[in-house]
Amino acid sequence: MAGPVQSIERAAAILRLLASGPRRLGLGEVAASLGLAKGTTHGILRTLQNVDFVEQDAATGKYHLGAALLHLGTSYLDVNELRSRSINWADALAARSGEAVRLGAPLEGRVLIVHHVFRPDDTLQTLDVGALLPLHASSLGKVLLAFGSMPLEPAVKAGLEAYTRHTLVAPEGLTRALTEVRELGWAAEVQEMTMGEAGIAAPIRGHGGLVVGAIGASGTVERICDAKGVPQPALVSQVRHAAQAISRDLGAARW
Amino acid sequence: MAGPVQSIERAAAILRLLASGPRRLGLGEVAASLGLAKGTTHGILRTLQNVDFVEQDAATGKYHLGAALLHLGTSYLDVNELRSRSINWADALAARSGEAVRLGAPLEGRVLIVHHVFRPDDTLQTLDVGALLPLHASSLGKVLLAFGSMPLEPAVKAGLEAYTRHTLVAPEGLTRALTEVRELGWAAEVQEMTMGEAGIAAPIRGHGGLVVGAIGASGTVERICDAKGVPQPALVSQVRHAAQAISRDLGAARW
Repeated sequence: MAGPVQSIERAAAILRLLASGPRRLGLGEVAASLGLAKGTTHGILRTLQNVDFVEQDAATGKYHLGAALLHLGTSYLDVNELRSRSINWADALAARSGEAVRLGAPLEGRVLIVHHVFRPDDTLQTLDVGALLPLHASSLGKVLLAFGSMPLEPAVKAGLEAYTRHTLVAPEGLTRALTEVRELGWAAEVQEMTMGEAGIAAPIRGHGGLVVGAIGASGTVERICDAKGVPQPALVSQVRHAAQAISRDLGAARW
Repeated sequence: MAGPVQSIERAAAILRLLASGPRRLGLGEVAASLGLAKGTTHGILRTLQNVDFVEQDAATGKYHLGAALLHLGTSYLDVNELRSRSINWADALAARSGEAVRLGAPLEGRVLIVHHVFRPDDTLQTLDVGALLPLHASSLGKVLLAFGSMPLEPAVKAGLEAYTRHTLVAPEGLTRALTEVRELGWAAEVQEMTMGEAGIAAPIRGHGGLVVGAIGASGTVERICDAKGVPQPALVSQVRHAAQAISRDLGAARW
């Protein structure tokens, strides 16, 4: 059985590096960040450039991500079954609830947004598809953690970043919250990522009942929660209903 | 100087293969398509799976594109200067013209849609970002061909596919049309890709005047063209004005 191919792992690491932080890096910066020799790094960058995965700025010589990745990324969306099975339910949930709806899947210790239906009003909104949210500070992430789609320890080990004063940064507090999520069957996040914002999410199950993603509604606290800051029960049941409908479509028998 | 890294080139070829056609392929199909040994192909696929660039279907064992590519693709959009400089102008063009607006950049002998503003009405529309259009049958593509962003010969050699009976499939006809595009400074496409649809596009120039992309309005023939099937002069000047404004922002002095 063949082992992993080192140069491909290094190429992937370079692409990840370019997708984070300042996003335009010189050869020396890339080599130093990954602990590679400049010659090795240059060979990989040139190859990535040949296949349009990386582009080099003519003026500065710095590298950034290339156009071919956009096409690959949207092709991934076309083949994503979770997303294709969810689109109609997500539209219906946004229309019924009047809130923005997002669909999340686990990726590298975070939640990848694979679908986003704007809140059905005329406000200016930015498409979140492709964005990565922290597990412990989003309702989608809490669902993935609570139902075992993502392990808790690496997230705790990496440190639970405090986005606001409401973020659950103590491992015990988070563990308690996740137990409650499992008992209730849904998760809430109230001003834990951004002050003034809140969200509610429920698990989507695939074949065999395994949780493969989460669907959630999010918006301002005043809309998502009641006057006491508690998530609106009507919204909670709308979100749970959508999650169960998608789970049924994905073949999760009990749901 | 280091040469290209073969395993990275092969990995890129596998990703491209998975992004085309049926999009879920078995090991044998991937190996046969690329003319590689199964062992080699398996090593590359496993490595791509480790870095989340490829996923394997649990039930069928078939491979498809992985979630990490979506995040890389949207990160590319964040760093794309053509797109970031164009967003406000594209919004304004859609608002003024009442038509859908798309921004294209050259990629692998086609036009990659890097931005798409929906037609400002309530109709259901699908986001085209990440899609690839043919050069010879789109107004965006004709602009890129006419102004030298993409060479004509490879497109002709690959064969000019007939999408409708109006598609320019004869090399001489296409060459004549491109000369006219250069003279006029804009391109039109009337029912050459889809019956009933038309588009108008103009070149976006970067530093030194080089054409780096195109912006265009598209919609039904009745909206884009007048009663004689000629592109609406008012729309043509709105599109050209937007292209010139973006070119100025990108540092193209004369524009």
